[in-house]
Amino acid sequence: MDVTRTLARFIVECKSEAIPLTVRKEARRSLLNWLGCAIGACRHETVSRALLALGEFSGPAQASVLGREERLDILHAALVNGMSSHVFDFDDTHLKTVIHPSGPVAAAILALAEHRPVTGAQLLQAFILGIEAECRVGIAVYPSHYDVGWHITGTAGVFGAAAACGRLLGLDEQRMTWALGLAATQAAGLREMFGTMCKPLHPGRAAQNGLVSALLAAHGFTSSNQAIEAKRGFAFVAAAERNLDAITRSLGDTWEVVLNTYKPYACGIVIHPAIDGCIQLRAAHALTAESIASIELDVHPLVLELTGKKTPQSGLEGKFSVYHSCAVAIVHGAAGEAQYSDACVRDPRVVALRERVHATVDPAMHEDQARIRIRLTDGRVLDRSIEHAVGSLARPMSDADLEAKFRGLVLEHLGAARTHALLDMVWRVETLVDAGTLARAAVPCVSPGTG
Amino acid sequence: MDVTRTLARFIVECKSEAIPLTVRKEARRSLLNWLGCAIGACRHETVSRALLALGEFSGPAQASVLGREERLDILHAALVNGMSSHVFDFDDTHLKTVIHPSGPVAAAILALAEHRPVTGAQLLQAFILGIEAECRVGIAVYPSHYDVGWHITGTAGVFGAAAACGRLLGLDEQRMTWALGLAATQAAGLREMFGTMCKPLHPGRAAQNGLVSALLAAHGFTSSNQAIEAKRGFAFVAAAERNLDAITRSLGDTWEVVLNTYKPYACGIVIHPAIDGCIQLRAAHALTAESIASIELDVHPLVLELTGKKTPQSGLEGKFSVYHSCAVAIVHGAAGEAQYSDACVRDPRVVALRERVHATVDPAMHEDQARIRIRLTDGRVLDRSIEHAVGSLARPMSDADLEAKFRGLVLEHLGAARTHALLDMVWRVETLVDAGTLARAAVPCVSPGTG
Repeated sequence: MDVTRTLARFIVECKSEAIPLTVRKEARRSLLNWLGCAIGACRHETVSRALLALGEFSGPAQASVLGREERLDILHAALVNGMSSHVFDFDDTHLKTVIHPSGPVAAAILALAEHRPVTGAQLLQAFILGIEAECRVGIAVYPSHYDVGWHITGTAGVFGAAAACGRLLGLDEQRMTWALGLAATQAAGLREMFGTMCKPLHPGRAAQNGLVSALLAAHGFTSSNQAIEAKRGFAFVAAAERNLDAITRSLGDTWEVVLNTYKPYACGIVIHPAIDGCIQLRAAHALTAESIASIELDVHPLVLELTGKKTPQSGLEGKFSVYHSCAVAIVHGAAGEAQYSDACVRDPRVVALRERVHATVDPAMHEDQARIRIRLTDGRVLDRSIEHAVGSLARPMSDADLEAKFRGLVLEHLGAARTHALLDMVWRVETLVDAGTLARAAVPCVSPGTG
Repeated sequence: MDVTRTLARFIVECKSEAIPLTVRKEARRSLLNWLGCAIGACRHETVSRALLALGEFSGPAQASVLGREERLDILHAALVNGMSSHVFDFDDTHLKTVIHPSGPVAAAILALAEHRPVTGAQLLQAFILGIEAECRVGIAVYPSHYDVGWHITGTAGVFGAAAACGRLLGLDEQRMTWALGLAATQAAGLREMFGTMCKPLHPGRAAQNGLVSALLAAHGFTSSNQAIEAKRGFAFVAAAERNLDAITRSLGDTWEVVLNTYKPYACGIVIHPAIDGCIQLRAAHALTAESIASIELDVHPLVLELTGKKTPQSGLEGKFSVYHSCAVAIVHGAAGEAQYSDACVRDPRVVALRERVHATVDPAMHEDQARIRIRLTDGRVLDRSIEHAVGSLARPMSDADLEAKFRGLVLEHLGAARTHALLDMVWRVETLVDAGTLARAAVPCVSPGTG
């Protein structure tokens, strides 16, 4: 079975009219959420240090750094924008695989679109097809690939970026097959990096390497034709178990992007049910931190595996602490970017409450569940079971929720007028004659000569 | 045990005078051999296609493309030169790990040295330390890492490039630790790519990604401090078995570069004993292809695993065919680059003889052994057992052999005068005030403004 070639053929041949309206709608929501995250983190030191380190090696000013004045060659723009969009860990999640699907794909095609004009409709199609490739490769190797320690957003993401860029470049079936092979042999990213600047590096590198893969393949740079399914191909080398059929089954009949979800909280998604429970109990009982003797959580095993940091020392580490997250949910009634600042993680009120949070694994729970038991100093015990967190497929964020999240991330960087204009432009992306205008509208002021 | 940090500390603190003369001598031999390979392949379509695909995204003209007129930013130069040096599969081999150690390290530091001046002595020290880091990481995960399908030159190479570049950038222990972490999380490359242009891509990407790792770390871009040894670090995620002690044991007392070997034949090293046997029998008995009824080989299992292509269709595939290689050894009495051209692989005389070559695995053999039995059409049977191939540690190429190989690869690209001057410059690299002159001497004519 030619898995890689079959996937390549689908990406090359899929007709735009074969993509249902509901799929395109969800893709626009994904794009909006992604763009907000990328702009929101544009001044973060992760982004600034990367620009300082690599800026002097950039080629011509071909593409925008979202939210900032700098312009870079498209390879560096893909890297920096993909990185920026994952810095807050606030981007989208494909729950089946825990891939953050938009970053690698959108960062790559948006940079490419500034250099090689395509329509907004073409951009959105490529985005959808890239996410499809990325998530199907991810599904094929999940969970063994993730369990052993690969950061699947990096490893699967590069396939999505290569596929989407290859689509925009008009690759034929053979060259698309090579592009996927080039992606396979650059797939990288370790979960050991969680809590460091290397985590957001992964989707950035995936975007950049996927773009490079498509460009090389376009120029006849050869690769394996069975890069995914061969004995020494990606699915065998990087995963103990695999289901290759998941890559090719029902291609064109089902669409992974409709299963995409968006986070109301700026931290690892596995903590969201516990945060929901705390925020709901706080609102229902007007709780203050001082009124609480202890918070006891029953959670899915991944919660402690991924976010078990008892004593986070920085904002970034706070995102990997279910203890800190529940503490801010009570103290602030929120878990946005502000709650994951260094200052907030060191706030004595938050630290004191964090130490009274206890978590126990319940292997019977699914990932979207949590039980929260709050013992008050007056002896009362409050209980809440969460079956589905806000932002899950069962309780999706509304368009209005997404717009509010976007404004919260973007306003300080673009100002009100440009924030509003950009938001409007994303909703009507399929009407854009030149998709590059989207990137150029996502910076503080219009760059000279780019209209 | 802090494996990553211990390795980082050694690379940072190692005194130049602690590196023995024999080590530096072997490093110069490695550098000469590497430079010849990189220049020799500079016009190959693998290099030309990469330049066509990526040239328009290059930054300032900071560094040389070895053997050619183009100049690129240092990141792209590291990529292209690392790729070029492995195109012919004619570069050096660290037999313990089958790593081709020079490519990732030398391509990265030579590009960096053109932009941030260092002395030739500093360059050679960084080269030695980079190879040390790369080979020790490789030894720690070999053979399980390689057996499952990772191209270890790519995956271990990025550590070497990061270490060597970090040394030239003067990183402190913490930043060197991060640089190794950045390398770990970009380690990639699949053996499935053997026989395609992606194989030489791997050392190129390793060079480029290692250089990026050091540059990011220099600017405070954080990474894990246990990137190699952590539960979800490189040695656990990418290998079923590992020996972490091999990374830190006797650091500074033993040097991997002295175990480096160089190829007399332009193909996979596992075929060399068989080629040796054929060339020796041809010389001893004045054999012609037409006089031979069949060639029977007994070989190590890796020979058929890596080079078992019965009917190669291109020069590149010929390098992965023990059958073709033995056929040209008889027909031409040689197995240089010329014997792996497309034309030679399709030559009817070679094809006809190739079909009479048969190989059998002997699991008792070591990798450097082969038995060759040639049945002649007149009924005679000739035998030869090879215990150690030319170019092995037991039968190393002499300095004169290496010079002859260098001239054979470089002459057509640089002409006699520049070839001779460059050769002389490599031998006295440690006397160079500016190591960048080495790169600038390795192009057809002096680029404007570079002296």
